Amino acid sequence: MAQIANVFVIFMIILVAYDVDAAKQKRPKSIALEFYMHDIVQTANATTALVAGPNGDTKTINSFGSVMVIDDPLTEGPELGSRLVGRGQGMYVFDSMNDFSLLLSFTAVFVKEKHNGTLSFHGADRILLTKREIPVVGGTGDFRFAQGYAFIETASIKGFSAVLKFSVTVVL
Amino acid sequence: MAQIANVFVIFMIILVAYDVDAAKQKRPKSIALEFYMHDIVQTANATTALVAGPNGDTKTINSFGSVMVIDDPLTEGPELGSRLVGRGQGMYVFDSMNDFSLLLSFTAVFVKEKHNGTLSFHGADRILLTKREIPVVGGTGDFRFAQGYAFIETASIKGFSAVLKFSVTVVL
Amino acid sequence: MAQIANVFVIFMIILVAYDVDAAKQKRPKSIALEFYMHDIVQTANATTALVAGPNGDTKTINSFGSVMVIDDPLTEGPELGSRLVGRGQGMYVFDSMNDFSLLLSFTAVFVKEKHNGTLSFHGADRILLTKREIPVVGGTGDFRFAQGYAFIETASIKGFSAVLKFSVTVVL
Repeated sequence: MAQIANVFVIFMIILVAYDVDAAKQKRPKSIALEFYMHDIVQTANATTALVAGPNGDTKTINSFGSVMVIDDPLTEGPELGSRLVGRGQGMYVFDSMNDFSLLLSFTAVFVKEKHNGTLSFHGADRILLTKREIPVVGGTGDFRFAQGYAFIETASIKGFSAVLKFSVTVVL
Repeated sequence: MAQIANVFVIFMIILVAYDVDAAKQKRPKSIALEFYMHDIVQTANATTALVAGPNGDTKTINSFGSVMVIDDPLTEGPELGSRLVGRGQGMYVFDSMNDFSLLLSFTAVFVKEKHNGTLSFHGADRILLTKREIPVVGGTGDFRFAQGYAFIETASIKGFSAVLKFSVTVVL
Repeated sequence: MAQIANVFVIFMIILVAYDVDAAKQKRPKSIALEFYMHDIVQTANATTALVAGPNGDTKTINSFGSVMVIDDPLTEGPELGSRLVGRGQGMYVFDSMNDFSLLLSFTAVFVKEKHNGTLSFHGADRILLTKREIPVVGGTGDFRFAQGYAFIETASIKGFSAVLKFSVTVVL
């Protein structure tokens, strides 16, 4: 009986080891990254275009219903002249009647030297909060199957323009 | 041999127990929640703004191409006066030429007393069906990494306004 | 002792077998599918409507900021007359100032004979690349909890219209 038990034991060590390995493979890979997004509004070097608003108003920047399309530089540091890591392309919509909040829906398209791929963001950006959170809903390339969240902090404001710090955590 | 087998057995019980625990930790947490969304259109207390449409038409509510921005109250019950649980902020787009269907893209921003966080919805809302389904594509706060779906049922309609019951299932 | 060890061993085989089964159940199901999307622009049988653009311009198709709403047929083969598998409903936004790139945000609503459900796409479509990638951010029906990616290849172009081949991989 002891001999048989021993064979079973060896067999089971293999089984258990296999299962632990399988569990490890399934464990998602977590990635953290940071960038600054330069949203430049209504200046000569604007990276945004107001394309829709309530009652056909495409002049007022921040009415309830204003829609802004963006092609914002993403940089390593808070200065516009710091290393370019990608572009934030998409749109935001002023979707609060009594507050300032956006539906922020854009893709971070990274330059290949930094990351080979994109991350899609889609959610509320409550711009009056010093620190707020937005979901990451997908990705491509190095970021396939990405899900996660980003903290957004307002690094600086000038008129309607802003520099936003994104601290992103995704699992793949 | 029996002694050795016994030591192995004890060692393996620990291993297996550990692995079962690891599996439990990985098992996603499932959350169910319900709310009613009040989409109020073209009245004095409207919670919506029509911001774009085909050929620059920003008067007709439901043309193919009409874009509506929303800041809809979310309540516990079907009455507008029932407990406020959050706001549904975002937009919908009439994107069917031969039918009435929307791209419904919004965030449920919950009041802190109810849930601390947001859920992002993004998908087709086939408004003529009594019961239809839309994906949940992300979340923040208590709903980080949320993925799932919601059934939408039309609780009542008055003119272009509607009360929609959302029955949401998400895993984190 | 050997007897006791043996009882433990049998008990543990059951435990391990249960855990391996649980791991299998958690293993995500992978689905591959293909379709062709017919984006027909500015012709008598157009499946698109330009609804917004910079400075209120709703005439120019591809300015930075142009917003197009789509209800594009999805077919099995590259010909418009081939079997209809669904419709691609949603929108795209020209969101690059120096390049041609879109925020492509739409739902593939499948006809029931093919798939019972929808898939939500949301991300950058870098239309000048022969082959590019977009995330799948959610799904309904048969595609609940779907996450993944699609390769987009331009099958043909005629004026502003295009036929796009989607090669989709999702896990549920």
